[in-house]
Amino acid sequence: MTDIQLHPRRSVAEVEEGATLAPKFGADGLMPCVTTDAATGEVLMLGWMNAEALRLTLTTGEAHYFSRTHRAVWHKGATSGLIQRVIEARIDDDQDALWLRVEVAGAGASCHVGYGSCFYRAVPTGPAAGGPLRFTEAAKTFDPRAVYGDAPNPTIL
Amino acid sequence: MTDIQLHPRRSVAEVEEGATLAPKFGADGLMPCVTTDAATGEVLMLGWMNAEALRLTLTTGEAHYFSRTHRAVWHKGATSGLIQRVIEARIDDDQDALWLRVEVAGAGASCHVGYGSCFYRAVPTGPAAGGPLRFTEAAKTFDPRAVYGDAPNPTIL
Repeated sequence: MTDIQLHPRRSVAEVEEGATLAPKFGADGLMPCVTTDAATGEVLMLGWMNAEALRLTLTTGEAHYFSRTHRAVWHKGATSGLIQRVIEARIDDDQDALWLRVEVAGAGASCHVGYGSCFYRAVPTGPAAGGPLRFTEAAKTFDPRAVYGDAPNPTIL
Repeated sequence: MTDIQLHPRRSVAEVEEGATLAPKFGADGLMPCVTTDAATGEVLMLGWMNAEALRLTLTTGEAHYFSRTHRAVWHKGATSGLIQRVIEARIDDDQDALWLRVEVAGAGASCHVGYGSCFYRAVPTGPAAGGPLRFTEAAKTFDPRAVYGDAPNPTIL
């Protein structure tokens, strides 16, 4: 079921204006994927996909990513239960980035730190630029230690 | 005005839970930036920033990106007039991706092909996976030839 065709990139016109999926992965074999909450429009996370993660996401209708830390395809929510059901997938003009609009199962969170969105801090701009980050969520949605136990933190310095 | 401090990454706890901006750029010196329409929540584009583009974006309050095609920092809208005013900037958990919520000037479009969003095609999922892409915007917002003339297309095969 994961054998959908990824087409060759024959011309700019076809890539930009055509109806065939002809994705471009980076030198590392990955493309960025923006995932938003289909109901609120909030950006939940920025993930990465290799060709296999893209195929699995499209065919199963559940988000799969490639973990750069673990060097493996990862079914989002397999550990935490926070499965992301794809409401709509979109590809961008030059087909090197994906946008998933999803509905999150369980507690509805998507961030391993425990927040609903990975983007839980605002960065000051304009005259306030350079000031401290401001937290945008009043509290964590879940306790990451209760969910992930002693699994290694994916954040790398 | 572009000399705001980007802090060193001393600990995972500080990067994830702290209030200091300590961004991580990839091996190529770039981080992905998701840009959404502040009013509608629609994802307009997925761009890239180097440290200078990030500093310029935060201090001026207008989106600047790094063009991988032209190998240069690029003030979005400088040619087209479609300036992106930053309503809010957010950084993600491990500080290697940015989210900009913007208000677009002029025609309100953000895609060089002429559409409002770069993500103007839906990719079928589930039982329909592998089928043709579906266009999500009825018509282009502007004529790219009238705006960009003979400038080279940034899409690379």
